[in-house]
Amino acid sequence: MIIIMEKTATVENIQAVMDKLKEHGFRAILHEGDVHTVIDALGDKTTLSLNRLEAMEGVSQVKMIREPYRLASRDRKPEDTVIEFDNGVKIGGNNRPVFMVGPCSVEDDYDGLLEVAVAAKELGCQFLRGGAFKPRTSPYDFDGLGEKALQYLQKAGKETGLLVVTELMDASDLELVEKYADVIQIGARNMQNFRLLKAVGKCNKPVVLKRGPASSIKEFLLAAEHIMYNGNEKVILCERGIKGFDSSYTRNVLDISAIPVIKKYSHLPIIVDPSHGTGQRYLIEPMSKAGLVAGADGVMVEVHSNPAKALSDGKQSLSIPQFRDVFAKLNNLIDVLHLEKTNVASQVE
Amino acid sequence: MIIIMEKTATVENIQAVMDKLKEHGFRAILHEGDVHTVIDALGDKTTLSLNRLEAMEGVSQVKMIREPYRLASRDRKPEDTVIEFDNGVKIGGNNRPVFMVGPCSVEDDYDGLLEVAVAAKELGCQFLRGGAFKPRTSPYDFDGLGEKALQYLQKAGKETGLLVVTELMDASDLELVEKYADVIQIGARNMQNFRLLKAVGKCNKPVVLKRGPASSIKEFLLAAEHIMYNGNEKVILCERGIKGFDSSYTRNVLDISAIPVIKKYSHLPIIVDPSHGTGQRYLIEPMSKAGLVAGADGVMVEVHSNPAKALSDGKQSLSIPQFRDVFAKLNNLIDVLHLEKTNVASQVE
Amino acid sequence: MIIIMEKTATVENIQAVMDKLKEHGFRAILHEGDVHTVIDALGDKTTLSLNRLEAMEGVSQVKMIREPYRLASRDRKPEDTVIEFDNGVKIGGNNRPVFMVGPCSVEDDYDGLLEVAVAAKELGCQFLRGGAFKPRTSPYDFDGLGEKALQYLQKAGKETGLLVVTELMDASDLELVEKYADVIQIGARNMQNFRLLKAVGKCNKPVVLKRGPASSIKEFLLAAEHIMYNGNEKVILCERGIKGFDSSYTRNVLDISAIPVIKKYSHLPIIVDPSHGTGQRYLIEPMSKAGLVAGADGVMVEVHSNPAKALSDGKQSLSIPQFRDVFAKLNNLIDVLHLEKTNVASQVE
Amino acid sequence: MIIIMEKTATVENIQAVMDKLKEHGFRAILHEGDVHTVIDALGDKTTLSLNRLEAMEGVSQVKMIREPYRLASRDRKPEDTVIEFDNGVKIGGNNRPVFMVGPCSVEDDYDGLLEVAVAAKELGCQFLRGGAFKPRTSPYDFDGLGEKALQYLQKAGKETGLLVVTELMDASDLELVEKYADVIQIGARNMQNFRLLKAVGKCNKPVVLKRGPASSIKEFLLAAEHIMYNGNEKVILCERGIKGFDSSYTRNVLDISAIPVIKKYSHLPIIVDPSHGTGQRYLIEPMSKAGLVAGADGVMVEVHSNPAKALSDGKQSLSIPQFRDVFAKLNNLIDVLHLEKTNVASQVE
Repeated sequence: MIIIMEKTATVENIQAVMDKLKEHGFRAILHEGDVHTVIDALGDKTTLSLNRLEAMEGVSQVKMIREPYRLASRDRKPEDTVIEFDNGVKIGGNNRPVFMVGPCSVEDDYDGLLEVAVAAKELGCQFLRGGAFKPRTSPYDFDGLGEKALQYLQKAGKETGLLVVTELMDASDLELVEKYADVIQIGARNMQNFRLLKAVGKCNKPVVLKRGPASSIKEFLLAAEHIMYNGNEKVILCERGIKGFDSSYTRNVLDISAIPVIKKYSHLPIIVDPSHGTGQRYLIEPMSKAGLVAGADGVMVEVHSNPAKALSDGKQSLSIPQFRDVFAKLNNLIDVLHLEKTNVASQVE
Repeated sequence: MIIIMEKTATVENIQAVMDKLKEHGFRAILHEGDVHTVIDALGDKTTLSLNRLEAMEGVSQVKMIREPYRLASRDRKPEDTVIEFDNGVKIGGNNRPVFMVGPCSVEDDYDGLLEVAVAAKELGCQFLRGGAFKPRTSPYDFDGLGEKALQYLQKAGKETGLLVVTELMDASDLELVEKYADVIQIGARNMQNFRLLKAVGKCNKPVVLKRGPASSIKEFLLAAEHIMYNGNEKVILCERGIKGFDSSYTRNVLDISAIPVIKKYSHLPIIVDPSHGTGQRYLIEPMSKAGLVAGADGVMVEVHSNPAKALSDGKQSLSIPQFRDVFAKLNNLIDVLHLEKTNVASQVE
Repeated sequence: MIIIMEKTATVENIQAVMDKLKEHGFRAILHEGDVHTVIDALGDKTTLSLNRLEAMEGVSQVKMIREPYRLASRDRKPEDTVIEFDNGVKIGGNNRPVFMVGPCSVEDDYDGLLEVAVAAKELGCQFLRGGAFKPRTSPYDFDGLGEKALQYLQKAGKETGLLVVTELMDASDLELVEKYADVIQIGARNMQNFRLLKAVGKCNKPVVLKRGPASSIKEFLLAAEHIMYNGNEKVILCERGIKGFDSSYTRNVLDISAIPVIKKYSHLPIIVDPSHGTGQRYLIEPMSKAGLVAGADGVMVEVHSNPAKALSDGKQSLSIPQFRDVFAKLNNLIDVLHLEKTNVASQVE
Repeated sequence: MIIIMEKTATVENIQAVMDKLKEHGFRAILHEGDVHTVIDALGDKTTLSLNRLEAMEGVSQVKMIREPYRLASRDRKPEDTVIEFDNGVKIGGNNRPVFMVGPCSVEDDYDGLLEVAVAAKELGCQFLRGGAFKPRTSPYDFDGLGEKALQYLQKAGKETGLLVVTELMDASDLELVEKYADVIQIGARNMQNFRLLKAVGKCNKPVVLKRGPASSIKEFLLAAEHIMYNGNEKVILCERGIKGFDSSYTRNVLDISAIPVIKKYSHLPIIVDPSHGTGQRYLIEPMSKAGLVAGADGVMVEVHSNPAKALSDGKQSLSIPQFRDVFAKLNNLIDVLHLEKTNVASQVE
């Protein structure tokens, strides 16, 4: 349950509630918000009368959280979380959807990377994405350039003014990745790598958390909860497709409905990745559109300066001219729809 | 393979090709199109030299069909199939997406049904849908009013000018259902009831074929092929959700990507059913939008005059005022997007 | 709920209970057992005090059925259902597991069929299986010989003393199939063809009901319930594999755990079909063994006189010598395990 | 491809092949076996004529490996891998299946743990399993005692003579875990945590690798390949259930067929975990039996001194008396079947 304190509650009032909770065996976590102070209380609710708690001085409201995730739950925080960067870029809430663009993995070709970054910036994209450390199903596949890739990304980001998103695969690389990246990505295969979640939970860079290919929505939000529980509330969820029973036409099933479902149950922003979600170039445009009208706060898309020669995922990458074409259509869709972007999913109960 | 004849091919040219095919053990099916005559040839391609076939008089082109479905394949028929009704309503191609609206099952309340039909017509919908014979997982659930429901549907259709869509569950009811309905629906659970597919293949009413909950896209198109193979090419596909590994938040996973995939590989129109696809009222708006921007030729949605009292699927049905609100938003989306509706999926190869 | 009457209950006692139930809007079905009479009551339990019902004369016990299937539920009938044939063959309970053996589809080669039947009989198998009407994903595949196949099956059955199992695809063929077959099979794709279930529910031949590839266990038992509800309690369930996310190595995922789960929740016999369940010849032996030790009451296996030339499913069929070898091992397993066959799943709660 | 050298090949012969491979851009890995020396060559096969390679002195055979995993492939190593411990315990090949027994997580109750260990040892089990670091879907669940648990496990292992199996969650704990454990477990959620796989690939303790809940068999074997590629060939695979579309009756679908499939394509030993695979106590006996007859080299089962009070997975744990009963039946099954244990899956091709 959560205890929402009155705006006027004193430090003593808050302490008294904390003490009462501990006395009854609860674990109590204090969140001091701009307006209200909120106490999350974890424990056996049968041991404590809610009426008595509500009657304590300074307590505004006691709310039960129905879902197992608490910090990520819209029950706790009804308003959308908006993540803001130093350069003014914002993700979530009523803000215009953002674009995270770049090659699957950063290759030893800085000019190619820069070419993508320049094109993305010109179009109005906000983020440059690219893998430095790549999780690969087979040990025989290219697994990333490592720190050199991080340097390339940072350099291209600085030259263009794009923010850098890159994947962290292991807690031991956190310090290194933090030095170069503006946003840390947790890959789908690591969605339940709890040590990694804990590590990024303790840093203060925003995190893009990709949904595991066989994760339920509850497991996905609980993975976000692991990060938030460790102190980092700047979590951007990313739907990137789930395993289906047929992979002849698409690599995964991009679960568009997860977007409005998550918007209903959580306040966190969510973006969509049609590149991994479908594995097919021709599906990027329609599935980006689908994600956007369903409420996505952004799109992550693979763009490569020369897809035919990409070391990974070439088949699903757009070339720069293809991306320009797709972007123009998505941008147009955002323009004509922008006014009603907010709360698409919340009007019929 | 298919053999496309020259426009100028004579009856004798065509007969000669047919004879040659039969001689080599092929089954040959003749399709006389407005422009070209096309021969579908089914058999062992190793027994016949393609060069010799191409060299025959009147033969324009010999094409291999890569997919196991042939009649449904875009390889055979590159242009979109458009299904037109006597009252001028059209589905498919560049036509404005249609709406099929009504209760899950028709109940013994004609006024309630008419109320939905009147509201739908006023908004500009084209079809009234409702079940007379309901497939029910449990034998203890309401399984439909039968012929009385068909009469109600026809009456409400006539009063409002809406076309009637209703499900056929068994070939033995075909004559009965044909008498009352303008479009015959094959339900998801019957997608591979091949006798039923054969039966509707021999009638000449358009057919809405729903995707089975565990059907691959290939199986879905092959089910359409069964209908077409028996002579009825007026097939409207319907994506209505597939089984996923999590049904806590949605009843099924509505596979939006199936829409652009099918648009690429088949010329048949495809509509989307967000009511069965999600099982959640609040998801109908965002998922209808997602379907439409991904290229759907129509939306099928459950609307009930009193959802709280519906005998089936009340939880996922919209009330009339809710539908008015959702429809207005979908209609607006169609308006602002209509010009670029066509070929959303076909521009990046 | 079910009302179990005392052994000594009179006709008047029973009638009084039936009347009371009807008075409260219940549908009441009478089952006169050898020992007890049992009344199934379907309706709104809040309208009637259970205490008052239990207090009525002749009532021994009132039991709530927790599962949505009732007639199929072990709550209603704790002892295993055993299905007995005129020639003394029995399926279910403590009886030795049976074997249903034969080609996927019966082809126009009576001698080949007879060869399989003779070999099966010599080994001690009880049933000859083979398709006369074949559901085929593609309309271009061989879909069965029809009545000629039924005649072949019956003839081979009579010559060898094997009972004949064959699939019914449409209610309109029931009379025909009943004339030739000892057991009627409902295929996986028709598991929720409710009209077909109703039709076989009204005949009195035993039915093999195959699990749909995306059916939950509840849906499977409710499909059996449809048959039983229409009057035929001789249902033999058949696990034949469910759709998984990977079909590179096996066609389906044979869900062995479904066997002990169903044994716990239902009294119906269940057999296992490793041929369709895996689609791989080399898996028939280990997966038959797995099914048997998990409690299966029989094995259905595809055997063909010349698998390389089979018109359907040749890849998963055993040749006669291969089957002899596999059968010997399975038979040995049954021998060494037979004494503890019963209730494998029911001893740890 | 792999190059198998003659028994009589000289060091110079081998070096010449290595040089030739490098010259053509191949990566070459040398495996010096007891009989043959084998060279794994990874690279672009079109650059080098196989005939020329086969013609080199000392080369016995050049074999293409069809599967993307190479070191794990039976193509490379036809005989079963047997992993042997200092105390003589062996896993794999023709050896009697082993048992890994213990609580899901080690709790702060050494006596309870010892009680389980003593009972397991008395029955003839070989391994004590227990979690010190627990991956938990929710951050609010008990996540393990840490090093204290490792000390308890080691102590109980030493007192009873059981080998200790425990999970490693993060590469940074490897040194710690290695100090206490005889076998290192990689959990299902970490199956594609490639850094962790690399880390255990560099240690020389045997590794139990659990199959991810949505991993294909190919992905599973490629995860093993990551470990082997880094130098550790002592990998024990563990089938523990995959995600299905229904979790009403079982937590996962235990994929028994994965056992004979993996036996066919890989030489690695594989065990079965019915506790996580089903999540149901009553299914442990039948599903252990199913795994064993399908070829499993061992069973991992959760046993707790007081399941009702277990901090994790109590519902699926056996009590000590229940385990005694189940073990007796499994042991009997192994006894009566042992002679034909080997190669169950490999006799029908």
